Amino acid sequence: MNQSVAFLGLGAMGAPMAGNLLEAGFELQVWNRTASRCAPLVAQGARAFDQIAQTIGQTDCVVSMLADDRATAEVMLAPNGVIAQAQPRTLVIDCSTNSPSMAREVAAAARARNIFYLDAPVSGSIGQARARELVFMVGGESDHVQAAEPLFRAMGRLTRHMGPSGAGATIKLINNMLSGTMNAALAEACAVALAAGLDPQAAIDVLGEGAAASRLTRTKLPKMFAGEFEPQFQLRLMDKDLQYFLTLAQQLDQPVALASLVRSQMQAACLAGLGGRDVSAVFAHIRPGVYR
Amino acid sequence: MNQSVAFLGLGAMGAPMAGNLLEAGFELQVWNRTASRCAPLVAQGARAFDQIAQTIGQTDCVVSMLADDRATAEVMLAPNGVIAQAQPRTLVIDCSTNSPSMAREVAAAARARNIFYLDAPVSGSIGQARARELVFMVGGESDHVQAAEPLFRAMGRLTRHMGPSGAGATIKLINNMLSGTMNAALAEACAVALAAGLDPQAAIDVLGEGAAASRLTRTKLPKMFAGEFEPQFQLRLMDKDLQYFLTLAQQLDQPVALASLVRSQMQAACLAGLGGRDVSAVFAHIRPGVYR
Amino acid sequence: MNQSVAFLGLGAMGAPMAGNLLEAGFELQVWNRTASRCAPLVAQGARAFDQIAQTIGQTDCVVSMLADDRATAEVMLAPNGVIAQAQPRTLVIDCSTNSPSMAREVAAAARARNIFYLDAPVSGSIGQARARELVFMVGGESDHVQAAEPLFRAMGRLTRHMGPSGAGATIKLINNMLSGTMNAALAEACAVALAAGLDPQAAIDVLGEGAAASRLTRTKLPKMFAGEFEPQFQLRLMDKDLQYFLTLAQQLDQPVALASLVRSQMQAACLAGLGGRDVSAVFAHIRPGVYR
Amino acid sequence: MNQSVAFLGLGAMGAPMAGNLLEAGFELQVWNRTASRCAPLVAQGARAFDQIAQTIGQTDCVVSMLADDRATAEVMLAPNGVIAQAQPRTLVIDCSTNSPSMAREVAAAARARNIFYLDAPVSGSIGQARARELVFMVGGESDHVQAAEPLFRAMGRLTRHMGPSGAGATIKLINNMLSGTMNAALAEACAVALAAGLDPQAAIDVLGEGAAASRLTRTKLPKMFAGEFEPQFQLRLMDKDLQYFLTLAQQLDQPVALASLVRSQMQAACLAGLGGRDVSAVFAHIRPGVYR
Repeated sequence: MNQSVAFLGLGAMGAPMAGNLLEAGFELQVWNRTASRCAPLVAQGARAFDQIAQTIGQTDCVVSMLADDRATAEVMLAPNGVIAQAQPRTLVIDCSTNSPSMAREVAAAARARNIFYLDAPVSGSIGQARARELVFMVGGESDHVQAAEPLFRAMGRLTRHMGPSGAGATIKLINNMLSGTMNAALAEACAVALAAGLDPQAAIDVLGEGAAASRLTRTKLPKMFAGEFEPQFQLRLMDKDLQYFLTLAQQLDQPVALASLVRSQMQAACLAGLGGRDVSAVFAHIRPGVYR
Repeated sequence: MNQSVAFLGLGAMGAPMAGNLLEAGFELQVWNRTASRCAPLVAQGARAFDQIAQTIGQTDCVVSMLADDRATAEVMLAPNGVIAQAQPRTLVIDCSTNSPSMAREVAAAARARNIFYLDAPVSGSIGQARARELVFMVGGESDHVQAAEPLFRAMGRLTRHMGPSGAGATIKLINNMLSGTMNAALAEACAVALAAGLDPQAAIDVLGEGAAASRLTRTKLPKMFAGEFEPQFQLRLMDKDLQYFLTLAQQLDQPVALASLVRSQMQAACLAGLGGRDVSAVFAHIRPGVYR
Repeated sequence: MNQSVAFLGLGAMGAPMAGNLLEAGFELQVWNRTASRCAPLVAQGARAFDQIAQTIGQTDCVVSMLADDRATAEVMLAPNGVIAQAQPRTLVIDCSTNSPSMAREVAAAARARNIFYLDAPVSGSIGQARARELVFMVGGESDHVQAAEPLFRAMGRLTRHMGPSGAGATIKLINNMLSGTMNAALAEACAVALAAGLDPQAAIDVLGEGAAASRLTRTKLPKMFAGEFEPQFQLRLMDKDLQYFLTLAQQLDQPVALASLVRSQMQAACLAGLGGRDVSAVFAHIRPGVYR
Repeated sequence: MNQSVAFLGLGAMGAPMAGNLLEAGFELQVWNRTASRCAPLVAQGARAFDQIAQTIGQTDCVVSMLADDRATAEVMLAPNGVIAQAQPRTLVIDCSTNSPSMAREVAAAARARNIFYLDAPVSGSIGQARARELVFMVGGESDHVQAAEPLFRAMGRLTRHMGPSGAGATIKLINNMLSGTMNAALAEACAVALAAGLDPQAAIDVLGEGAAASRLTRTKLPKMFAGEFEPQFQLRLMDKDLQYFLTLAQQLDQPVALASLVRSQMQAACLAGLGGRDVSAVFAHIRPGVYR
């Protein structure tokens, strides 16, 4: 299994994902906007390139993990980007969290050149990326999903084909709306618990047993109680995902009052300078005056 | 272990809890406002009474599971109620979901008669009640919590002493606010997934893997997708719990915009006639025109 | 017309109202918690007292303008307060903005001593108070409203009998909810106009012509655009009024999602230290980072 | 003053506006998607055409009043539309309520053909349109605004130049957000007043004196109290305007929690079948079960 793969985008998530492909035996060619981030993977055996076209070269597989719609448009749709430069029948697996319309736009451009494009965003954060425990939510054609299985398996623990192009992006946004709303609800929970004088650890333990208990209860509540907002998932990224979700709901003509409110809070927290902190820092917006 | 226990309130939760006490070997005396609900337990060996005073009799332990503050006030604080009629040093374990102020009011009245009162609401629904998997969140004095351990153990899998009187009620309301908010977020998730044409089962599966995945994801999403709102936990009860939570937040001067919005939705759903349906029926309010 | 009147509470509103009674020829006896605020009125001919009982003396009319339910309870219901100390058949006109339940509680206590109590909160701010342009919204019995007419006329331009005790307080809270919501909407309007680069004065002019144009458009928009939040009506008072409104809506079982959100914003603005600024300072909460 | 004008779009607003141009002495050529709506104006002396190109003919002035961005795109930007067919130096006054981006897009297309385009939406409803009391909020170049003055004067009472292209559309959306929010707040006011048993007329009168009193107080409150939702301004149009406002706020990165909530309510009311009723019919959504 020494198939060659081009990996584009070596951020907090992309780097460990690429590392896992390398470890699984794939020949890896990497590119990142800020080239210096390629070094650790090169040290492990990957080859780095300055240009997307070079990186793709003759690989029949491209995996990307990019920041947002804008970065995806640049990397995928520019004249020197993936869709224009890749060989027909290349399999392009885009793991970025994009809007469904962007996913469908890239898919259409790909189809026109007989390139096989999948929107395949992931559930899971840095820890899951390192531990090969990501869950892939995939939109595109069944054949292509099957062809991508070895790569998904090298990076995650579960792949689910959700439907045609855009379906992966859609469920991912729904998933992150749930996380964002739960995160905001936990901030209210924490603020009331603190104001009521409850013991933080006891509260964390008991809420961890409730019907709404989730990974977020375990990871975000302690950060809120401690006022420690070292970023695991940046607030600004959640703000972006919620914006995409609202646009999606708008296109589908579905009112989403709760998600709209949560997004307003995230957006205000960003304006207040918290965008680079962990998403749990919305607590500082919901309970003004406790931290900072 | 044939200690005698008086159990007051044999609703959907109380009945299986009382049954578990009986099965654990306690001598059980039961009372319920609607006396007919006593029959199944009597058939298993409990003794039923018409009056609270009789039910308590010489027992040194009272367990109650009542609807709300009002029912608790009547059962606990009326002249012929528990606090006035129980012997000094009786241990009263109130498992109802009440407001912290009600819990503290009953606790003060109990203290004045040297009765030992615990607010001990539970996490878990009917299934957990039957399976002895409830989690007890307890407010009151440590000695009394220790004394109550055998009873908690007969009905649940975990007991957590949260602090002085009212602390159990407080964390319970916070817990249910989290459930109520998650339930409302799931309704928006489901509405968008349906409008986007996603496959319900695939959506349920994948959202069940996300960072916000919880028991609610598994139990409420399928009901929403199916439009099947057979009550597991009545919407009107969640509406009441959220009202208590808002009052608590108000007393603590903590803004809770999210919980306020969720409560407005629950309240509107009640006005629209959905109060007796499962809490997941808020979906019908959030996506008008799909069901009913 | 040299009837004697006792005026209790000489705050920003009470002082000009009392001054207008004096000017209209009433013999005025005044009391204020902070006695020093009596001096200007004494200089104009009023008599000041340290105790409420003395102030009331033999007057057959009491007018009060107090901060909130708590102050009203102390002044009206304490053993040395108005209801206990006034002669039977005294007419008590309470212009404070209280909750309807407080108004009904005082009215009941008054009735028991054959004292005539009206809840008579006002529409209008300091300017209207000075210019005798207040509007009185009155709850109580028709006879008493008629008897109070000369006093209302000396302080305002319109009196409206709304119904039995509590009806004045009820419509006043509804009125202030509308103001508070409009104020918050104006803050969003201003923030978007600024971000879009519109000329402030042109925006103020045009919005002053719209279907929602009101006194608030003229008074609050300029403050928001200028970032000048010198208090005309303190944000903390609006926060209190909205809290009373929410409690009222809760008692009436009416969901009020919008008012709940606005109150959350006011409450958060108070926690952020803006309570003593003008109500328009909620702008600084809605557009973080522009001012302060 | 027998200048010739082409008027496109004879809906509830366009028809009386066109009529006023006719009455002011302009030679009027009219077009409407549904041609039958032209008849009354033809009877008064206008000439009707089937095609936009014919309607424009040699006129040096075009006024349009269209439903939304989509209709504007079709009428303005299609190959057989206004921008492609009009003579250079034609003055195009678009009174539709569009999004600022649409206004800027049409303006750019117009500029490329040396056509003079103004976005000039109006404040005022059918009554104001008939009575020549509209207020025009105009974006575009000063010279063109001046040139358009005679037409504005024939249709309204005030013109305000707000800035470059898109500025008229921007302030109009802000204005309608204020109306939409006030309308929703009035619905909560009415629901609480009804639940409290207040006399409707007394409530309408007193709220009409408050600091937030506006034309909406006078026009919408009576409809809500009466449950009479005959359309003056259709709920679906407000829903659309709020959607445009949210998109604008999104582009400007300004959180607008209040407007988002109001839009969710409007959207839900549309889904519940109220889109064709008056905007005040949101009352039926906010107080379920009273009407319908």
